[in-house]
Amino acid sequence: MKNRERLKGLIAATFTPMLANREVNYDEIGNYARYIEKTGINGVFVCGTTGESTSLTTSERKQILSTWVKEAKGAFKIIAHVGSNCQREAMELASHAQTCGADGIAAIAPSFFKPATVTDLVQFFKPIAASAGNLPFYYYNMPAMTGVNLAVDQFLLEGKKQIPTLAGTKFTHNNLMEMGVCLALNDGEFEVLHGYDEILITGLAMGAVAGVGSTYNYIPSVYQGIIEAMQNNDVEKARILQMRSIQVVEIIIKYGGGVRGGKAIMNLTGIKCGDCRPPISPFSEEEYAMLTNDLNNIHFFK
Amino acid sequence: MKNRERLKGLIAATFTPMLANREVNYDEIGNYARYIEKTGINGVFVCGTTGESTSLTTSERKQILSTWVKEAKGAFKIIAHVGSNCQREAMELASHAQTCGADGIAAIAPSFFKPATVTDLVQFFKPIAASAGNLPFYYYNMPAMTGVNLAVDQFLLEGKKQIPTLAGTKFTHNNLMEMGVCLALNDGEFEVLHGYDEILITGLAMGAVAGVGSTYNYIPSVYQGIIEAMQNNDVEKARILQMRSIQVVEIIIKYGGGVRGGKAIMNLTGIKCGDCRPPISPFSEEEYAMLTNDLNNIHFFK
Amino acid sequence: MKNRERLKGLIAATFTPMLANREVNYDEIGNYARYIEKTGINGVFVCGTTGESTSLTTSERKQILSTWVKEAKGAFKIIAHVGSNCQREAMELASHAQTCGADGIAAIAPSFFKPATVTDLVQFFKPIAASAGNLPFYYYNMPAMTGVNLAVDQFLLEGKKQIPTLAGTKFTHNNLMEMGVCLALNDGEFEVLHGYDEILITGLAMGAVAGVGSTYNYIPSVYQGIIEAMQNNDVEKARILQMRSIQVVEIIIKYGGGVRGGKAIMNLTGIKCGDCRPPISPFSEEEYAMLTNDLNNIHFFK
Amino acid sequence: MKNRERLKGLIAATFTPMLANREVNYDEIGNYARYIEKTGINGVFVCGTTGESTSLTTSERKQILSTWVKEAKGAFKIIAHVGSNCQREAMELASHAQTCGADGIAAIAPSFFKPATVTDLVQFFKPIAASAGNLPFYYYNMPAMTGVNLAVDQFLLEGKKQIPTLAGTKFTHNNLMEMGVCLALNDGEFEVLHGYDEILITGLAMGAVAGVGSTYNYIPSVYQGIIEAMQNNDVEKARILQMRSIQVVEIIIKYGGGVRGGKAIMNLTGIKCGDCRPPISPFSEEEYAMLTNDLNNIHFFK
Repeated sequence: MKNRERLKGLIAATFTPMLANREVNYDEIGNYARYIEKTGINGVFVCGTTGESTSLTTSERKQILSTWVKEAKGAFKIIAHVGSNCQREAMELASHAQTCGADGIAAIAPSFFKPATVTDLVQFFKPIAASAGNLPFYYYNMPAMTGVNLAVDQFLLEGKKQIPTLAGTKFTHNNLMEMGVCLALNDGEFEVLHGYDEILITGLAMGAVAGVGSTYNYIPSVYQGIIEAMQNNDVEKARILQMRSIQVVEIIIKYGGGVRGGKAIMNLTGIKCGDCRPPISPFSEEEYAMLTNDLNNIHFFK
Repeated sequence: MKNRERLKGLIAATFTPMLANREVNYDEIGNYARYIEKTGINGVFVCGTTGESTSLTTSERKQILSTWVKEAKGAFKIIAHVGSNCQREAMELASHAQTCGADGIAAIAPSFFKPATVTDLVQFFKPIAASAGNLPFYYYNMPAMTGVNLAVDQFLLEGKKQIPTLAGTKFTHNNLMEMGVCLALNDGEFEVLHGYDEILITGLAMGAVAGVGSTYNYIPSVYQGIIEAMQNNDVEKARILQMRSIQVVEIIIKYGGGVRGGKAIMNLTGIKCGDCRPPISPFSEEEYAMLTNDLNNIHFFK
Repeated sequence: MKNRERLKGLIAATFTPMLANREVNYDEIGNYARYIEKTGINGVFVCGTTGESTSLTTSERKQILSTWVKEAKGAFKIIAHVGSNCQREAMELASHAQTCGADGIAAIAPSFFKPATVTDLVQFFKPIAASAGNLPFYYYNMPAMTGVNLAVDQFLLEGKKQIPTLAGTKFTHNNLMEMGVCLALNDGEFEVLHGYDEILITGLAMGAVAGVGSTYNYIPSVYQGIIEAMQNNDVEKARILQMRSIQVVEIIIKYGGGVRGGKAIMNLTGIKCGDCRPPISPFSEEEYAMLTNDLNNIHFFK
Repeated sequence: MKNRERLKGLIAATFTPMLANREVNYDEIGNYARYIEKTGINGVFVCGTTGESTSLTTSERKQILSTWVKEAKGAFKIIAHVGSNCQREAMELASHAQTCGADGIAAIAPSFFKPATVTDLVQFFKPIAASAGNLPFYYYNMPAMTGVNLAVDQFLLEGKKQIPTLAGTKFTHNNLMEMGVCLALNDGEFEVLHGYDEILITGLAMGAVAGVGSTYNYIPSVYQGIIEAMQNNDVEKARILQMRSIQVVEIIIKYGGGVRGGKAIMNLTGIKCGDCRPPISPFSEEEYAMLTNDLNNIHFFK
């Protein structure tokens, strides 16, 4: 683990392309991968929240990941999200992730039965991480979706003793004080991947150097600009770009959020992602017309 | 559907017996079934919250259900819980439930991606119910676990138009006004199965005639007494028995709630249910000693 | 305290009548008191949530209470709500309540700074109760409004040691297990006044013998019927009446809840209560027309 | 309003000094004011959350404000918090603030009865702001305490039409996207005062130029350093100082938060603030010893 390269820059949380009958459209992943490569995005986060992991079967999740690995051809990093309420399913996915060639794994906290303590969370993840051999493991912290709001810094400290491959956390939470604490732990031992696209500037200000996000898929240059500006200490420029990102995020919120609204924008930008699976309702023609209008109003399509 | 018999009395939500390595202990289900039969409980609710459904794989859930059907030998009713965040998994489980001979199915709302409207919930359940053919379908409403708090009465009315087999709801919520409204709909068209054991008396007062609960497993006579007393309009007697139930529930809350604490009591009463799967932590020897002491203090073991 | 008579039956939580300019309409309290007397309601709860206590100044609260005492002429009991985020204001109100002749006091938990423990809550109330001399003190428990959800049974036990006048609790919460525990404490030492009108039947089933409610003001006979039926062990009759109450509560919820909607119904039934103070918005003419229509649909006006 | 100077830099939210009997210690305000002046802090925010406004009577709030105005002698700005659940009390406080010479007023949302819409909130504040004549009005947004989470940008836009003196918002919330939107409105028409000390760097990154905080009282140079560093585009330096602030905030959280823990630190630093009023429990000798030790561990006292 010692010499492993840390994640840097943008990791796009991928949407899962679907056909009209809501079967997975594995064929589109090739186009999607070539698009990602062209944008210069540093990696993808496969079958996370954006990828509707909880709406997919275990075998679908495996095949989606394998397809991404095959299509990426090493051009960018691949982080496999293997989280599940069912520890055994997560272990199976973790093992598969290693076998098929992913660069790392991440897992969200179980959210039906919620871990009562940090120790419960560590014990839940321990065999999952171990199933992926040497692949780095990231705890995907997202209290707004899971209702699990255990102290991440304590998790990292306690977890490291039990999980040798623990690399850090995908921190999708607006508790930026906690993010700062995690970044500062043991002089920066852990990677903290910023999670909320609309406030990337704040995570970078706190010291993050990488982010995982769904809107990176369709406005990558905005975020690449934010990262570059902050590296150059040009806060003013980063802020102007962040406000651009916020304009787009305000629109997706209007259409049900980053998964539902984001998938619709992907369709408009030429990657055929189709509709979401239930319980997320399909996008109607009227909505597409309204969305296009909203995007035109902010000159989304140059 | 017209002449289908309505559920009445007590339906025990079964625990999933597990071995020391946390594999499912299918062999114990036979003993468990004979115990249930002896108690006079009217039916079982298999692989629900109490049964740790979200911690089980799809194939495990099928095999557990099949084993219950086989062991019950028609002595009591079997309701299969088929709910899942993944609609396709739920459909597969629903189809299997019909094939293997269950008497009805139930499904909890998806809780990672939450349905935004009653319509989304109906659309989510529609193909699941259809996969079970003519089996009656119950919506398992449990906002405290799912965070989904859509109006159940509206769900029943709208759902009935799309789901011909919709029989009613397992109502695990302390909004007893809403329960009353559901019971009164269309002059009692829908079955409303009371869900919180510690307040069964209040559900019966509102008009419920059946309940699904986990503590029915180990103090069935208390609840049978409550139902009988309320049928005889003896509120005072029902109340005394309800206070007995509350004494037991206060103890299980102390040990982590009905799943973790309840499973430990099952072990003490002779059904080898073992420990829960992560993220629910195992029960220690010290805890068993304390639990036994607490139960002795209320003369649990006569 | 020993021989003090316990509260029984219905205590109406009074609305605070207001003029068009939203000044308190003290003059209407006389009519209101004669109306209450005519209904046979057992008492009033003055300046509680329904009475918009938090929107009133300290001097207004005193004058409203004095007016009620004067107008009641001993025909029914008067419980003064003296709760406030400011302990010193509550002490002043408690002292005034005793001086002016109220029969008891109640106080809600402070809800901006929330007590962290039961001990904090006891310490907060102790000097307030003491300021009212021998008047019985009721803890007004209403977690949905205050966000304070400390164990009421523990409060009663610990509080009794510090507050000799502690009589019980106005229990406005749907945790009916906790209500049952409070009723059973020390063989029924404490009075538990049921708080949610729409589920009065469930509180009576648990053992309550008195209730405090806002809809008692305009459909008293419904609730008197529920209490009488439950005393006669006629659960069926009580349930039918409770469903009548629920029909009315469903309408007030549609108009913003028991304070805003209830005040409008009072105006329609002839007690000139006027509008609520901000932040509760005034009732428009259109809303009055709709409300009248809704009430006609359930034959509210015989 | 046109030429009014905008707030810049640090505004300390003052603690309310109290005697052993928990009466307000007006005499200490002189020392406190001289201390503030010496630190170079730009202004004070009087009788806000930190000042325990909800635990004070109206007359105490007036006298505290008057004392601050008198003792400040124009050396720094004075913002009077006049918020109350009772609109009339808030109007009285607003009028007094103008009369006695405050530089601006702020009001928190009513939190017992919560405004249902932005319009309700505007209507609630309109007569309060008007009572202070030409003094600039700030909406004190703090959803974690009030439970009121209405869109602040919509409030500013709609409010400006009704409240000519509306200057902006004290934004105490970790929704930094919303803060960014407020800052960007109408090319920066509104002042947005950053509220959470532990993440000041993130608010400055989003474009804020002023903050209101309680820890500014005892580590002012840390925050002055953060502001200066960010003005110089030295994000790295600002981050190091922010981590220093976080070390202190972690300690006050351990002792019950910024009001209780902060007041104890003030006592240690020589301003005799005494204890908090109930329901906030007093600080024990043991706690002072532990707190001193915790502060020594981070070299708080140089």
